[in-house]
Amino acid sequence: MSERTPEPRARRRGRPGYDQETVLRRAIDLFNRQGYEATSVGDIAAELGLVKSAIYHHVPSKEHLLAAALDEALDGLSAAIDAATQRHGGAPAYDRLVAVVRESVQILAAHQPAVTLLLRVRGNSEVEQAALKRRREIDDKLATLVAEAAEEGYVRSDIPADLASRLLFGMVNSLIEWYRPDGPLGVDELADQVVEMAFEGLRTPPLRPGR
Amino acid sequence: MSERTPEPRARRRGRPGYDQETVLRRAIDLFNRQGYEATSVGDIAAELGLVKSAIYHHVPSKEHLLAAALDEALDGLSAAIDAATQRHGGAPAYDRLVAVVRESVQILAAHQPAVTLLLRVRGNSEVEQAALKRRREIDDKLATLVAEAAEEGYVRSDIPADLASRLLFGMVNSLIEWYRPDGPLGVDELADQVVEMAFEGLRTPPLRPGR
Repeated sequence: MSERTPEPRARRRGRPGYDQETVLRRAIDLFNRQGYEATSVGDIAAELGLVKSAIYHHVPSKEHLLAAALDEALDGLSAAIDAATQRHGGAPAYDRLVAVVRESVQILAAHQPAVTLLLRVRGNSEVEQAALKRRREIDDKLATLVAEAAEEGYVRSDIPADLASRLLFGMVNSLIEWYRPDGPLGVDELADQVVEMAFEGLRTPPLRPGR
Repeated sequence: MSERTPEPRARRRGRPGYDQETVLRRAIDLFNRQGYEATSVGDIAAELGLVKSAIYHHVPSKEHLLAAALDEALDGLSAAIDAATQRHGGAPAYDRLVAVVRESVQILAAHQPAVTLLLRVRGNSEVEQAALKRRREIDDKLATLVAEAAEEGYVRSDIPADLASRLLFGMVNSLIEWYRPDGPLGVDELADQVVEMAFEGLRTPPLRPGR
């Protein structure tokens, strides 16, 4: 994930058009700005200063762009949970959970537009339904990890594991609403703060009688 | 907020059409399902089995429906923060912050479709810009409350107040993605769990050396 090379954003030199990657980036931005349903292939072409047929040179349909964007986000998040599970094979579930939270913050920051699009998907097409299914599979893996950490005694068991998992990753996902790569907080520092807040809580220690 | 009577949802008896409230509820559902930009007044009419002109009998434009929905969500959230501030006038900021979190969970549950719409607003029109401005004002009040609670020593100060506030209410807002009124968890119980997780954290006490 974090080892991935950045997406090529620049127009290819010496070429009259755009590469497929640039078309995808601009389409994602447009989908996020005005909504997927309200965006036409003509809008994407206009955004790039091209005629509609030039877009079809790169992609067969608007839905292919959506699918590519959702796969980007989902591949990242799936890889994050799998990597954390494998990398820390023998480690306690708690450590693996913390690693997944950290990796998720990294993915969100690195693939913010694609993840934003993913989190807004409502299931209005087969592509969207497939993405929601993959999201549910990821959510299930996360809830299982939280349950394991609770069974091992490192995470409190008075909050049901599926609820704890939803609140935890709801908090993580909310980053996409305001995170800016050029903001004051680096992504590693941000991940530290998220982990602190999620696992230690906001309250100061003196107020925790008997805990 | 929680004292509010529920919105009238039923069709008025003996009338051939719908009342304005029903038109608004159906429009909000449609905006959430297929996106505001992609929804036409004709779509809203079709959803209700009416002709387009019948909608204009109730509301002058699609944007009026959006404004009414966003005001509903924002009025609820503004009232929550104001009520918590006033009701606990002399109380520590920490207690008032906990009260705002609880009230926010109640508002989200009671006005879920309107809040869902609010959280997806991108600022594509004057109505949306105005809503984003009100959201920022609410966010500022919340961050101030967190900062006060930290100054009074009840909330940890190693996480910056504006970040803590964003993560806290990001977690609260994420409820709209999955909360169902007919789910296993009552809204008061849900609010308890959110407060527990946010302020005490997910980790079990034995692992907190020196805290």
